[in-house]
Amino acid sequence: MKIYGKNAITESLRANKAVFNLYVQDSFEDKPSEILALAHKQHIKVNFVDRYTLTKLVGNEHHQGYVADIEDFCYSEVEDMFDLARTKGEQPFLVMLDGVEDPHNLGSILRVCECAGVHGVIIPKYRACPINETVAKTSAGALEHMLIARVANLNNTITKLKKEGVWVYAVELGGESLYRQNLTGELCLVIGSEGNGIAPLVKKNCDAVVTMPMFGKVNSLNASVACGVAVFEAVRQRRKL
Amino acid sequence: MKIYGKNAITESLRANKAVFNLYVQDSFEDKPSEILALAHKQHIKVNFVDRYTLTKLVGNEHHQGYVADIEDFCYSEVEDMFDLARTKGEQPFLVMLDGVEDPHNLGSILRVCECAGVHGVIIPKYRACPINETVAKTSAGALEHMLIARVANLNNTITKLKKEGVWVYAVELGGESLYRQNLTGELCLVIGSEGNGIAPLVKKNCDAVVTMPMFGKVNSLNASVACGVAVFEAVRQRRKL
Repeated sequence: MKIYGKNAITESLRANKAVFNLYVQDSFEDKPSEILALAHKQHIKVNFVDRYTLTKLVGNEHHQGYVADIEDFCYSEVEDMFDLARTKGEQPFLVMLDGVEDPHNLGSILRVCECAGVHGVIIPKYRACPINETVAKTSAGALEHMLIARVANLNNTITKLKKEGVWVYAVELGGESLYRQNLTGELCLVIGSEGNGIAPLVKKNCDAVVTMPMFGKVNSLNASVACGVAVFEAVRQRRKL
Repeated sequence: MKIYGKNAITESLRANKAVFNLYVQDSFEDKPSEILALAHKQHIKVNFVDRYTLTKLVGNEHHQGYVADIEDFCYSEVEDMFDLARTKGEQPFLVMLDGVEDPHNLGSILRVCECAGVHGVIIPKYRACPINETVAKTSAGALEHMLIARVANLNNTITKLKKEGVWVYAVELGGESLYRQNLTGELCLVIGSEGNGIAPLVKKNCDAVVTMPMFGKVNSLNASVACGVAVFEAVRQRRKL
């Protein structure tokens, strides 16, 4: 997988990902930088090329002078997320995405979840955005530190989560106030896509629908902002902040 | 100003903006739609053109079949925001942006603020993103319902706000927990740009710095997500949710 951008590549190196090729803008050759230091330490050969070559490599100009070929993203299992929570001595806190197809939104959601200490993000195998370079770039490196599971059927996964004692809440309009719901304990928040929301059957399978109260005329939030507000309210309750 | 996208144009029509030209994709001519109904009611002539013409008009393909020329955005004064709060019988709740230059971020922030019932957004006149069609599109119509003031000097405005009894808090790393700060009362939250944060002098002029606690390795949020989390925590406290 090709990734680009300073943060995305720094985090890949920090996470000890296998980097097959590293391209850096030639004007950075003599400038001290964390990326060059990490590459040197890990014996990764750096190819210094001009800005135009980098733009051609990634097909856009948002590379900030850094492009790398790294090993493909390695998906996890939902069980790994439970293990992670156990290791940390925390109650499992998961996020499930239904139909988020925009890579910018997915990257931004991964970033929020990483900052909030979510143990893993569950995405569907079909009709969803795969993990690609835009996701990696938008996530600002969060991708490297986040467990992501791809499942064939969200409803089956919800049923299994509920059997494990996890409370599964759909974050959507028309439910109980987010602030009145108990978000401590084993928790999975389900976030829908901006256009279509959460599929009716998925919503029906959830334990409850929780809603952000809105006070304007437009009253619809971008998926990553909605995820941020819901996830951080859960953080506030869980950590008694 | 040219605007495009279904939500942006619907909200402009609902807000009774002067629409000089309305272009709709020809294949929508016989389909009932709120935009056509509103245009008919307001005696606005609709030009039915093909998809390609619309793409040429706005320079990209994100128009969803609707483009309009509307009156330029009309900025407000900070006093108008106080008046609005008074009319609603609420304590003033403002957001100030320092150096947000990306129109997508600005649009997304306006959307959050509108949903949260913020009374107005203050932006600097220089080194900031002006209100343009990308902002209008990303705000999903929130722009039409939001008071926005452009001021020459943020520091002077902060001094004036403080004299009026408003508490001004910078939302940034390294401060007191957002959740321990009292965000009720007359309030202005200052949000910085993603790259550079809040200018040192602006930060120094604020009453305090408030911070979202972070629990990951990346620990930096997109400006609109940070704004969403901070603004909705204020909403929770102010409305006793």
